[in-house]
Amino acid sequence: MVPAPGAGQVIRAVVLLSGGLDSATVLAAAKAEGRTCDCLTFRYGQRHAVELDAARRVAEALGADDHRYVEVDLGAVGGSALTDSSIEVPTDAPAGIPITYVPARNTLFLSYALAYAEVAEARELWVGVNAVDYSGYPDCRPEFVQAFETLANLATQRGVEAAPEPWFRVRAPLIHKTKAETIRWGVALGVDYGMTHSCYDPAGPDSLACGACDSCRLRRRGFEEAGVDDPTSYA
Amino acid sequence: MVPAPGAGQVIRAVVLLSGGLDSATVLAAAKAEGRTCDCLTFRYGQRHAVELDAARRVAEALGADDHRYVEVDLGAVGGSALTDSSIEVPTDAPAGIPITYVPARNTLFLSYALAYAEVAEARELWVGVNAVDYSGYPDCRPEFVQAFETLANLATQRGVEAAPEPWFRVRAPLIHKTKAETIRWGVALGVDYGMTHSCYDPAGPDSLACGACDSCRLRRRGFEEAGVDDPTSYA
Repeated sequence: MVPAPGAGQVIRAVVLLSGGLDSATVLAAAKAEGRTCDCLTFRYGQRHAVELDAARRVAEALGADDHRYVEVDLGAVGGSALTDSSIEVPTDAPAGIPITYVPARNTLFLSYALAYAEVAEARELWVGVNAVDYSGYPDCRPEFVQAFETLANLATQRGVEAAPEPWFRVRAPLIHKTKAETIRWGVALGVDYGMTHSCYDPAGPDSLACGACDSCRLRRRGFEEAGVDDPTSYA
Repeated sequence: MVPAPGAGQVIRAVVLLSGGLDSATVLAAAKAEGRTCDCLTFRYGQRHAVELDAARRVAEALGADDHRYVEVDLGAVGGSALTDSSIEVPTDAPAGIPITYVPARNTLFLSYALAYAEVAEARELWVGVNAVDYSGYPDCRPEFVQAFETLANLATQRGVEAAPEPWFRVRAPLIHKTKAETIRWGVALGVDYGMTHSCYDPAGPDSLACGACDSCRLRRRGFEEAGVDDPTSYA
């Protein structure tokens, strides 16, 4: 009943775009595959709102076909240094799952992406999760991505109509890449990483990256290992 | 590592409470099983905001231990007569999936419930989905419920720590009940259905139920078939 994506048929994709390094690379990869890209950026009370400006710049520079901000009421559930200002952002290397973990974040964001995709007739959800340099987040593993894809096809009108063929696919092209591999791929795809923002704890009037948080350290080491000049301005 | 719920241990549950007939019955059932019940009610731009008042009354009457409202930015994704005021609510019997379908609604609501549960140390998510009188919504089927439970245990710190045992359970006690069976069960549990609201299209200063929409018709027929007086005031 539902035609498979064929040659000459443009596939519409929903891309989760945070303004960080990974999701910029994912958007570039989706565009390179010829996808029409609707980007979603979530506002969820995170301290690093400077990411939202980065998301806008990245969407424009990489030719996103649409870009929307979605308000997410994550503050009501609390429990993370990224949304709860009473918790300090740690600068030491984490053991196990870090305090910067936001409960069910990727589940929530992919759920919004799925709702949007069903309305917009998109059939791919692109997300920059990564199981290598992933800081121990459970919702960045391949088994999570597969479980969400299964859920998406059971949860939706499109999925029901297309069964037993899957209608929705979750695309996570960074899942097995190191940060250095992601950076080298993005540079080849034409990503200007100077537009992106990764720091959990930016400071000063220019919101410079701290250089010390978990996210900054992963980013710095990625550029070093990739042999690529780091365009980030650190405080 | 994680203790199984044993005798004498109180299990904390997150209950999705809409203010309608089904979720009131679910809350009563969870309380009857001795659960500590944290209720979540979602505000998502729905026309029938009168449900939000009903949710408050029901939570108080049935002894909810906590009750929170969560803002959900569903209007940004559009696509349903329940959130898009440019679409008429249909009054004829639906063929297939009706226009009142909200894309990915239960996926989104359960995702919020999961985030809250992980922070609040709850391990059950109670939801009033129903596969019998379900209006054709794909996210009301047993396979959807099972897929979300699988996802929940892969997506979370708690789930990872407890594996291979499941930490989270999704409880859907109405899934195989007719509306009449739900009503008879709720009456036995002491639910006052006069507090609940089901209508998709309430009208007038008292927000009376229209009696004609899909939801009103299912409710009316349920009381008739249950042999229980319908406490609803219809316009």
